[in-house]
Amino acid sequence: MRFQNTYLGSRALAGTLTEADLQCVDENGVSLADAMRQFGGAPEKISTAKCNSNKLLGYAEVHIEQGPVLEQKNLAVGVVTAIAGQSRVKIRFTGQAGHAGTTPMNMRRDALCAAAEFIAAVEAHAASIAELVATVGQIQVAPGASNVIPGEARLTLDVRHQNDAARVEAVQYLQSAAEDIGRRRGVFVLWETVMETASVPCDLELTTLLKGAAENHQHEVIELPSGAGHDAAVLGKITPTVMLFVQCRDGLSHHPDESAKVEDIAVALDVMNDFLQLLAEKHA
Amino acid sequence: MRFQNTYLGSRALAGTLTEADLQCVDENGVSLADAMRQFGGAPEKISTAKCNSNKLLGYAEVHIEQGPVLEQKNLAVGVVTAIAGQSRVKIRFTGQAGHAGTTPMNMRRDALCAAAEFIAAVEAHAASIAELVATVGQIQVAPGASNVIPGEARLTLDVRHQNDAARVEAVQYLQSAAEDIGRRRGVFVLWETVMETASVPCDLELTTLLKGAAENHQHEVIELPSGAGHDAAVLGKITPTVMLFVQCRDGLSHHPDESAKVEDIAVALDVMNDFLQLLAEKHA
Repeated sequence: MRFQNTYLGSRALAGTLTEADLQCVDENGVSLADAMRQFGGAPEKISTAKCNSNKLLGYAEVHIEQGPVLEQKNLAVGVVTAIAGQSRVKIRFTGQAGHAGTTPMNMRRDALCAAAEFIAAVEAHAASIAELVATVGQIQVAPGASNVIPGEARLTLDVRHQNDAARVEAVQYLQSAAEDIGRRRGVFVLWETVMETASVPCDLELTTLLKGAAENHQHEVIELPSGAGHDAAVLGKITPTVMLFVQCRDGLSHHPDESAKVEDIAVALDVMNDFLQLLAEKHA
Repeated sequence: MRFQNTYLGSRALAGTLTEADLQCVDENGVSLADAMRQFGGAPEKISTAKCNSNKLLGYAEVHIEQGPVLEQKNLAVGVVTAIAGQSRVKIRFTGQAGHAGTTPMNMRRDALCAAAEFIAAVEAHAASIAELVATVGQIQVAPGASNVIPGEARLTLDVRHQNDAARVEAVQYLQSAAEDIGRRRGVFVLWETVMETASVPCDLELTTLLKGAAENHQHEVIELPSGAGHDAAVLGKITPTVMLFVQCRDGLSHHPDESAKVEDIAVALDVMNDFLQLLAEKHA
């Protein structure tokens, strides 16, 4: 990402790209506005790019899944129900550092043991709720020596669900689990929510049409949420959206090994063609 | 530690300081041998420092506990049973990195979740065996981003017990626990033993005398192992050893806040005085 900023094109269409966005600079100090000028664009006219939503029937997006579900089920395409909302949290467990050789087990306040119990709780809780995903992706301990009991553990938590209430409830459950673990162990827990974004549901009417179109070309059509963000989440603010996922290899994306099969893309083209026909018939 | 090398003095007395030790260099490239010369010493005569063990009755050492046990029991001194043996292990869990938003919980091979389960097993197993201590002091995960499932977790394990068989058995138990966790989760486990040192038991006869001396000055005398290393472990190779621990504040050592009370040190002096008297009577 040259400008460390996302959804530039779709935000211009949605009218949510701001002057501050245009002043973002790349690593050489070139602003987005200047880059647009060098490309022959006119950043001062960016507001004219905004779509008149009254003239739109909706926004349809085709994207690789970026996940492993379709590949595992051996399906070319799948219909997206919603772009999941996200909560991101930073958590710090503060216990007491101590000598690994001289501190009996029952006199420890080991921050890493508290964190480990929490990580197990995150995994178990997410596994118990349909379509919830929760991930601890980072952990650091201090002092961080092999012969010293960790006095501090810092970790990140990423929780996603297509249903915002389910996500918020899961985060609350995990916060109280962390606090229980801390209380029981004499370990202080600091819980800091750093990001919360709401789910963007796909339009039910368009999605039903898309599913019908997919059923013409695939024996089984599954619906699944998107755990990753998409342009559809931006355009969903001005028009109904619908999304089709295409199978990809090993769930990989934004990676040199990202790959989708030609025959799966052909199925996606056929499905979108039928979808547009169904939509045209409906509005005829 | 200027030369990243330990027990220099006691190893000279025990005759186990080698030419290689004398060639260790500090961060400015000054060798131990040169540092000794600059101080007026004669490194070429180091072998003459070796004690004639036939002339020794034993080696007695007084040291702060470096742990919290005596402070918690409100005892000035305690008698050491042995200097615990140690095993140090490096462990790597290798699963599969993945997108935190798009990979369902049941399709993950999360290396940190495997590591967390292992850390919980380490804590529970050590707590279940008397006088065993086991610590995970370091952990690193990769890729280490908040929105990426960890594909790799590296950690250290430190296991100590005064009984070598109990320590070895615990390490074996934990290795098979790690392998079970890995097998169940599709996570590869690499187990690398990086250090193993045997326990050095204190001499039973001298320890009995020391305990008798301590009972003259303290209503209750406890025996406890030393989880940390001491000069006594080196001199234990050439002569019977005995050790007295003195209470210290918060178990702290090698730290500016390290502290022992004057009155506790006074008790230790009285105990050692009586111990030497008892020893003299015995050999009279």
